[in-house]
Amino acid sequence: MPGALLTDLYELNMAASYLRRRMIAPATFSLFVRKLPANRGFLVAAGVSDCLDWLEQFSFTPADLDYLASIGFDDDSLESFAPLRFSGDVWGVPEGRMVFAGEPIYEVTAPIAEGQLVETYLLNQVSLQTTLATKAARCRIAAAARIELVDFSFRRTQGIEAGLAAARLTGMVGFTATSNVEAARRYGLRPAGTMAHSYIEAFPTELDAFYAFVADHPGQATFLVDTYDTLGGVAHAIEVIDHLGLHRHAAIRLDSGDLAALAVCARRMLDRAGMPEVRIFASGGLDENDLAAFVSHRVPIDAVGVGTRMGVSADAPYLDSAYKLVAYDGRAVAKLSTGKATLPGPKQVYRGHGMRDVIARRDEPRPDGTYPLLEPIMRDGQRVSPMEAVAAGRARFEADLAQLPDEARDLRSPVAPIAAITPRLRQLTDEVQDAARRLAGTVDHSSVPE
Amino acid sequence: MPGALLTDLYELNMAASYLRRRMIAPATFSLFVRKLPANRGFLVAAGVSDCLDWLEQFSFTPADLDYLASIGFDDDSLESFAPLRFSGDVWGVPEGRMVFAGEPIYEVTAPIAEGQLVETYLLNQVSLQTTLATKAARCRIAAAARIELVDFSFRRTQGIEAGLAAARLTGMVGFTATSNVEAARRYGLRPAGTMAHSYIEAFPTELDAFYAFVADHPGQATFLVDTYDTLGGVAHAIEVIDHLGLHRHAAIRLDSGDLAALAVCARRMLDRAGMPEVRIFASGGLDENDLAAFVSHRVPIDAVGVGTRMGVSADAPYLDSAYKLVAYDGRAVAKLSTGKATLPGPKQVYRGHGMRDVIARRDEPRPDGTYPLLEPIMRDGQRVSPMEAVAAGRARFEADLAQLPDEARDLRSPVAPIAAITPRLRQLTDEVQDAARRLAGTVDHSSVPE
Repeated sequence: MPGALLTDLYELNMAASYLRRRMIAPATFSLFVRKLPANRGFLVAAGVSDCLDWLEQFSFTPADLDYLASIGFDDDSLESFAPLRFSGDVWGVPEGRMVFAGEPIYEVTAPIAEGQLVETYLLNQVSLQTTLATKAARCRIAAAARIELVDFSFRRTQGIEAGLAAARLTGMVGFTATSNVEAARRYGLRPAGTMAHSYIEAFPTELDAFYAFVADHPGQATFLVDTYDTLGGVAHAIEVIDHLGLHRHAAIRLDSGDLAALAVCARRMLDRAGMPEVRIFASGGLDENDLAAFVSHRVPIDAVGVGTRMGVSADAPYLDSAYKLVAYDGRAVAKLSTGKATLPGPKQVYRGHGMRDVIARRDEPRPDGTYPLLEPIMRDGQRVSPMEAVAAGRARFEADLAQLPDEARDLRSPVAPIAAITPRLRQLTDEVQDAARRLAGTVDHSSVPE
Repeated sequence: MPGALLTDLYELNMAASYLRRRMIAPATFSLFVRKLPANRGFLVAAGVSDCLDWLEQFSFTPADLDYLASIGFDDDSLESFAPLRFSGDVWGVPEGRMVFAGEPIYEVTAPIAEGQLVETYLLNQVSLQTTLATKAARCRIAAAARIELVDFSFRRTQGIEAGLAAARLTGMVGFTATSNVEAARRYGLRPAGTMAHSYIEAFPTELDAFYAFVADHPGQATFLVDTYDTLGGVAHAIEVIDHLGLHRHAAIRLDSGDLAALAVCARRMLDRAGMPEVRIFASGGLDENDLAAFVSHRVPIDAVGVGTRMGVSADAPYLDSAYKLVAYDGRAVAKLSTGKATLPGPKQVYRGHGMRDVIARRDEPRPDGTYPLLEPIMRDGQRVSPMEAVAAGRARFEADLAQLPDEARDLRSPVAPIAAITPRLRQLTDEVQDAARRLAGTVDHSSVPE
């Protein structure tokens, strides 16, 4: 989505002021998550590469400038905005990698006005996508290797854009298909889906509907059985499967009621009918906790459509993400705001075995046995490589998942790894905070009224 | 966002089957929320009108059809999709009206394939926008007439699209401004914002930054005071306000720490400095519960920037929304799925004084002293009137809010009004459910394994 006005007004106010004062020295901004939600043991970084397309086309159109004039920006400001492009360098964590509290996901170095203006867009996209990828990864962990997962979230995500992102990111963490057709096209995913209750209701009887659907879609025979009476629907499905000899590629779908109990009954009915190959698909308000329960109780559900609660990350729908100035004109900076102190200067994260991470200054050497998380992804406003296929993120996710400690994988009470900080970064932080305290001046707090 | 592929695969499967069988009789689909989230006493309907633009341009491009061919749709199906447009009639609840569980927000009557194909998009948009409008309305109620509200959510909404919607809908329920510049332009809202911590840090001292900002933006003097030390920042703001004589239009902004306590201290400092007109603006993770606490404890905060938790509706990020076939070819239909039974046939909702609603068959006469909630908004695929200004929804919201019973306004344990059902609709429902039970056939449940 193009548009330099996809930003908060204060970014424009600040940028105008910087440009007027010829403050064009490079600044580094760091995007990170201050604290993980209580029920998250990891985050799956996502959205970084998507932002690069937007940065490449960042500019003010004449219509943008007319609007800014109408809300009070003066001619000097408009003239300074008109030629602006994003000319900076970006380091980012490639999609699919796990990240933890305080670790930079994105670091932008650019003339300060440019770095400032892109804050809102980058925060929005990286927060959304990291939120959704993380929630989907929890479903993947819960399903273990036992249950196949399909993205069913499109109708209830917070917008069409979020639905497209959810489909892509579920693919990145191992879902095998999505109901979302546009996302399947755009990202090369497998589309999946069969029939709704309305289809059954549009025919005189459930059996008529089942026969009609199979006739029209010979390759697909997943029968939705709960429109009128679930086990009655299973009996009808068995009749059609038997009559047409569909044993090999048929399934039934349960979408309401006590899914675990119904699955047990349906499985026995199918098995007694000599149909052990017919699969059971379940959907309806399910999330990672339901998936974990199905697995631990060996419920005979083969595949699940995961929808709403995954698609909005219902238990943790946002991240405590921040985009902070960490260096300006060669000087490392930091704010001291209560609970919001930042690590100064450009940084790198080095990952050792078992997700032992250490946050370092960008210019520190790589410790033995580690690899860097942040990679240069944009130079002088140009992306270094084109947008990746979903499979590239998938490979990184699988590699990190295999290394994730058990206590971080836990769904109910996870304990996330905490990155160490190198002595040199710690020293810089202390120095910058001391300087900031001096800058704050010495207000005589004893005079503050109680 | 154009595109007939913005749908779930099963919609296309069903539509192909309907068209192949010449099932082109009109169907009516009803979009409603089955059950309100536990902590909601009302919903504010939104998104209906936005969908009409999408319906008007609904069609399959040649590239869409090529993709569908690649995933297995046969030539007959592609030929039947190619000329398809949305030609139906739509009744909808205009934006800003409050609605309750089971009340149709949107009813679509169209050839069944068309009505089916648009399900995903309509559910997505109406669910998102109703969710956000409702959450924003709760903030508005909490703020009473005491605290001015500004939308600060853009950086953390679930996507850019959701951020634009949030800004528009906060405007509809009485927020006075938004930080979101593109939304302000698009919807005629007032943009608001001043400076971030990074601005302060980019200058040698906080005082330098304050003086610079005021020099560059003479009309705006809201000083962010918590970069280094909040009360120190207040002292610096007082110094600048005093030196430049800005008393009349200055404010300070608190963005971290114990906001209520800091506001009390800052207010006393400002008052003692002879600056009772200088306003206190607060932000930082606030929602309706914080606003209610500020009001009830008379915390001297004049305006609040409401962000993340409002912008994702953190405590209720989705709705139990449904889009159900209720009539086909002149026959009222309903499904019986456990916990998901529907009211058959086209419907109307009549609202009496004090939000006493009754759900009726569409053809029932209006009871005295009531007005209908659903209006015809699209005929033969053409919208009846152009997209409204935000003010139109605002007027309806204010009218409904004035009528909302106290127990439904309650933020913590709200009790939502429950719509009555007319005897004629009740009778139709019973008839259709009886017929559905007969259709389900008589499976001998005694033979189901335990």
